[in-house]
Amino acid sequence: MRLHHIGIAVKDLETAMKFYGDVLKLKLLGVEEVPEEGVRIAMYDAGGVRVELLAGSRPDSPISKFIERRGEGIHHIAFHVEDVDGVCSTLSGLGLQLTYQQPKLVSGGSRKINFLNPKSTGGVLIEFLTEVGSSG
Amino acid sequence: MRLHHIGIAVKDLETAMKFYGDVLKLKLLGVEEVPEEGVRIAMYDAGGVRVELLAGSRPDSPISKFIERRGEGIHHIAFHVEDVDGVCSTLSGLGLQLTYQQPKLVSGGSRKINFLNPKSTGGVLIEFLTEVGSSG
Repeated sequence: MRLHHIGIAVKDLETAMKFYGDVLKLKLLGVEEVPEEGVRIAMYDAGGVRVELLAGSRPDSPISKFIERRGEGIHHIAFHVEDVDGVCSTLSGLGLQLTYQQPKLVSGGSRKINFLNPKSTGGVLIEFLTEVGSSG
Repeated sequence: MRLHHIGIAVKDLETAMKFYGDVLKLKLLGVEEVPEEGVRIAMYDAGGVRVELLAGSRPDSPISKFIERRGEGIHHIAFHVEDVDGVCSTLSGLGLQLTYQQPKLVSGGSRKINFLNPKSTGGVLIEFLTEVGSSG
């Protein structure tokens, strides 16, 4: 289980990109929009781990709601695992709450993800992801 | 600039260690107490990046106050930099707010650290650290 990325909720993507890119000089890996989640994402490399800036693209998106409730800041951390299905079965068997009953295919089918509810982890939203693009 | 660790504020260190160690099976690197900061820290490896669980050891410690204000959750992220003095001078020159005027020696003189105020970063407390133990 290795840390894959940190997701940071930001109000304005361009303002945040000035800070993480121009000031901290992290290397920009790309910017993508995920319309079904209502989010725009700027991805940076921070030495093998990614920093992902997440901006809501509509008021009712999960990120916009998070910012409304808690303000800007760290939204979640993500661990890369070999087998997200197996990990989630185990966690679910321990009584921990996951967001999806079955891990969800995202990013055009290249990743399978699920989230552990912060209530099950002491306040931290934890994502688990498995890259499936290369092997399947 | 590479991500060195994530600091997670927890109410009870032993409870949190059960989750990160026994359930997530992250590898425990050690537990240390820093009396001057009123904190107990459990450090885990997550693929070259550390996850540090931070528990206040007295009610007036910064971690205890953070939890009182915001609840348990991610407290800060830390980047390893080659030259924390240089980085902090640059950031300070840009008008960003740092916690210490000069980076502070901690961990028995083996690390020099400083923090960027969340007001300057869009809600994220960012630590910069340079290991000085090996080179001096």
